Amino acid sequence: MTTYTPPLRDLQFVLQELLHVEDVFRRLPAHADLDGDILQAVITEAGRFCAEVVAPLNQVGDREGCQLDAVTHAVRTPTGFRAAYQQFVQGGWPSLICDPAFGGQGLPRTLNQVLYEMLNSASQSWTMYAGLSHGAYDCLHAHGTPAQQALYLPKLVSGAWTGTMCLTEPHCGTDLGLLRTKAEPTGDGQYRLNGEKIFISAGEHDLADNIVHLVLARLPDAPAGSKGISLFVVPKFHVRPDGGLGERNGIFCGGLEHKMGIHGNATCQMVLQDAVGSLVGEPNRGLAAMFVMMNAARLGVGAQSVGLTEVAYQNAARYALDRHQGRSLQGPVAAGQPADPIIVHADVRRLLLTARAFAEGGRALLLYTVLEIDRSEGAVDADERAAAAERVALLTPIVKAFLTDNGWMATSHCLQVLGGHGYVAEWGMEQFVRDARINMIYEGTNAVQALDLLGRKVLGDGGKRLQAFAGEITAFLAEASQDARMQGFVGPLARLVQRFAKLTAALGAQAQQQPGVVGAAAVDYLRLSGHLVFAWLWARMAQVALQHETGADPFYVAKLATARFYFAKVLPEVESLFAQLESGDEPVMALEAALF
Amino acid sequence: MTTYTPPLRDLQFVLQELLHVEDVFRRLPAHADLDGDILQAVITEAGRFCAEVVAPLNQVGDREGCQLDAVTHAVRTPTGFRAAYQQFVQGGWPSLICDPAFGGQGLPRTLNQVLYEMLNSASQSWTMYAGLSHGAYDCLHAHGTPAQQALYLPKLVSGAWTGTMCLTEPHCGTDLGLLRTKAEPTGDGQYRLNGEKIFISAGEHDLADNIVHLVLARLPDAPAGSKGISLFVVPKFHVRPDGGLGERNGIFCGGLEHKMGIHGNATCQMVLQDAVGSLVGEPNRGLAAMFVMMNAARLGVGAQSVGLTEVAYQNAARYALDRHQGRSLQGPVAAGQPADPIIVHADVRRLLLTARAFAEGGRALLLYTVLEIDRSEGAVDADERAAAAERVALLTPIVKAFLTDNGWMATSHCLQVLGGHGYVAEWGMEQFVRDARINMIYEGTNAVQALDLLGRKVLGDGGKRLQAFAGEITAFLAEASQDARMQGFVGPLARLVQRFAKLTAALGAQAQQQPGVVGAAAVDYLRLSGHLVFAWLWARMAQVALQHETGADPFYVAKLATARFYFAKVLPEVESLFAQLESGDEPVMALEAALF
Repeated sequence: MTTYTPPLRDLQFVLQELLHVEDVFRRLPAHADLDGDILQAVITEAGRFCAEVVAPLNQVGDREGCQLDAVTHAVRTPTGFRAAYQQFVQGGWPSLICDPAFGGQGLPRTLNQVLYEMLNSASQSWTMYAGLSHGAYDCLHAHGTPAQQALYLPKLVSGAWTGTMCLTEPHCGTDLGLLRTKAEPTGDGQYRLNGEKIFISAGEHDLADNIVHLVLARLPDAPAGSKGISLFVVPKFHVRPDGGLGERNGIFCGGLEHKMGIHGNATCQMVLQDAVGSLVGEPNRGLAAMFVMMNAARLGVGAQSVGLTEVAYQNAARYALDRHQGRSLQGPVAAGQPADPIIVHADVRRLLLTARAFAEGGRALLLYTVLEIDRSEGAVDADERAAAAERVALLTPIVKAFLTDNGWMATSHCLQVLGGHGYVAEWGMEQFVRDARINMIYEGTNAVQALDLLGRKVLGDGGKRLQAFAGEITAFLAEASQDARMQGFVGPLARLVQRFAKLTAALGAQAQQQPGVVGAAAVDYLRLSGHLVFAWLWARMAQVALQHETGADPFYVAKLATARFYFAKVLPEVESLFAQLESGDEPVMALEAALF
Repeated sequence: MTTYTPPLRDLQFVLQELLHVEDVFRRLPAHADLDGDILQAVITEAGRFCAEVVAPLNQVGDREGCQLDAVTHAVRTPTGFRAAYQQFVQGGWPSLICDPAFGGQGLPRTLNQVLYEMLNSASQSWTMYAGLSHGAYDCLHAHGTPAQQALYLPKLVSGAWTGTMCLTEPHCGTDLGLLRTKAEPTGDGQYRLNGEKIFISAGEHDLADNIVHLVLARLPDAPAGSKGISLFVVPKFHVRPDGGLGERNGIFCGGLEHKMGIHGNATCQMVLQDAVGSLVGEPNRGLAAMFVMMNAARLGVGAQSVGLTEVAYQNAARYALDRHQGRSLQGPVAAGQPADPIIVHADVRRLLLTARAFAEGGRALLLYTVLEIDRSEGAVDADERAAAAERVALLTPIVKAFLTDNGWMATSHCLQVLGGHGYVAEWGMEQFVRDARINMIYEGTNAVQALDLLGRKVLGDGGKRLQAFAGEITAFLAEASQDARMQGFVGPLARLVQRFAKLTAALGAQAQQQPGVVGAAAVDYLRLSGHLVFAWLWARMAQVALQHETGADPFYVAKLATARFYFAKVLPEVESLFAQLESGDEPVMALEAALF
């Protein structure tokens, strides 16, 4: 019952009018020849694939879920998933941004972000099968030996095989230092792995001929804790030197989780029984190598929630225009009908505009961040590359946690617009909410992101990354404050920058004395950071919209109205956050554990 | 995998130490003889029933759901539901607060509130079968003819039959004025009803021998809109004058909804095909009669969310003590083990304490409100009865909307404490979240509650109800401010009362000019009101706790710590709400409908 229309106009707005991607790409040698029309053509075609091929599978996937054959350990994915994946591979979509040396198309990562936002709007469950391969690709591309790269990368690039990340074990998720899976040398340069992994997304399925598992495990002589973890590549089927498939390897799906959402994706318990794999990167340095995947995955999770927010918004807005119920408080709008469309009601508008502000703001933040990755990888100047990488490091936890918290609120808001129908499966809204909930948990819970942001990314370098980023906002403010029409945006943003800087300095000083302060402040601090970035991006988007004669093009009218709504009705969340932060950690830490 | 322990100590605290129910009952002739020990014994036994009989059915009910036989129109409820209901009836629980004239036990409503909080912790889905009967009972008790009362009340009181409310139709939920179901006189004082109803909770099931449907429909000569709606009682099986069951009536379940949660409860599409019923109350005055049920149902929905919050908290707290992961930022706590229990982490504590503050605050608010109903029905003095009724009218939308919004946040917080396990069905946490979501929708969406509060209950009488209630808070402040230890509660509460009064006056003035202001302000205003009431109750609870030597009894230590947490980390939500309200309705109403 849900529909999806790729937001091509808004993507074009963010890419070209806000971020001027073509100017950026022109300065990156690898992408200097990229033509704006080609970019647009690829995006349009990607949108068509998402809307026509993937979106119709989303509710089917939720209803059917995945089935495990306990004898063969095979997993059957929902009806249509395999065929759509084959079309995805045939269309060359897996290879979009991959290295031409391994068969990739070498396009900028920004383009993949566009593709993945739309894929996630169409079906988060389906998209995870494809998305996880990118992590495996990135990891082997960065840390694999030439032999590993030759064996695995072309197949991951083409999409013939998919990838996984095997980290979590029953007794350890966040705290990977506790993991127990063992890897013993076989004597011929390989390793034999034994152990149990849980929550392995796309750990087993029928979409592709082979699955390339990247597995964290301990070598026999490994030190305890997180400094004794190594990374291995463990294929489902052994790969012969000629690239053909050999024997089945000892890594099996032992069970599927029954989950709140993302039913179409197989969340597997994986058993490693003398599974043979090879070491990726240095012994005992597996976590560092894995973080290549992890950082990309965190941005990918943010994209999942933005995708869900967009599609939930579209469907809720359509309902609000179609459903007639009650009358406007200002008097009948649809006088000829027995009731007005519910879009006349202020609270329906508030729910929708919140979702819209989160979708469009999230899109802008993600594309900004991924464009910085392109810059960090492709800029000629080393300083520019380094500065871009710092920005990405700072923004990654914000993208992951702020956008997924927002996605949870926004999809729930959209459900509410439909009233009782929102709660009924057939209408599709409640699935968006259930699917969105996992995004606050996996790839590091949002509290872990918050500790990463405040502890490591902000205080960890004495605030340098943050100051550099704040400098960008200050420069914008200096310029934007010249325009009187920008007053409603410039004022609140400037005050927020100041209060945020003061808060950060205070937290830095307190953290010296009491490290516990960071823990109690981190989650509120992350949401403040998210609003700081959103306020900046929404002010920039308002600035672009104001450059166009108001009323001439409804797109800019709506953009400006959404920006104003965000500043008036969403951004004030910062008032609560500042007030909560003022009370420090004592109210949270006072109660002794036994009294919970 | 979930467990439930009735919160007997906290119930005793609220009933006896906070609300002094025995003193109140002593002044109500109908309950003057009620002995405190009997009260306690009934509560303990009710808790045992909920924990031992009902709680084990909750996850089964979610997994199995209900099954409709398309040929017989019979609905099979999940395994164990029927047997538990029979025990419920045998235990006399349906009759607890009912009129002795019809076989009831005549106990105060406050006691039922205690029972229903615990039942909802045990299983919201199961409890709805029993709970809806109370609405039918109340409605027929207030508006039924002596013949209707004689026919239906004894069976509803004993629980032999259950009841429903048939309001919603496919094209109308919130706006009942649009409803189309027709009722035509049969000539013998009865009516023949035809139409279709949807979202009828417990509309068909196998728990009881008969179902008493209260149905809204239009008489042939009825005026259009909400002034042309009448109420009818339509039994599933006709009832012979001797009380025995006759023929099957023409009211059938035509389909079951597949929903996000409350799978164990049958949400029915009901088809009326020449169903025969009798008129309840005056013709065309059906909505007023139905509101007797509706107000009770709204308080009942608040109780559902408090029940879910309590049980979710209990399970999340247990997990946080059992699960070891990472180390305290202040250094190892469980030094002998490889990791600390996650209760050491500030954000886990924040999630848990928020849920706890919502559960305990919600319990206090509900019991306070229902005790006021007892007073409004049973006080000797007419003024006291009227004042209590006004308080209930004011608090009902707050109980419904504030507590269900809180329940949604709290159950999601508790899910988050369990990380990935929280998302997995087996652990039971995600069910609490899915079940909690409906409570923000049914019995009037939370936005409808907000309009009821601000438009009707506050501005509708020129602020009189609110002033009377605020007077109670002011009196408390005058007394509590004498105690220096209360400073941390008195100061913020006093400021909040002042700001709230000022805001209300401003909204009242604006609403005269622009009625649309009410619509845009209502939802934020309701949450502010909820915090005002919570802050008052939490301050009162802190006052009680402070009367006991700190440290002597861990119960009071925890109560005080939770009160302080609420003031420091939850109440600051009001800062955002005030800031959002300042911007008025323009940001919400500006965008024209076509641009959504």
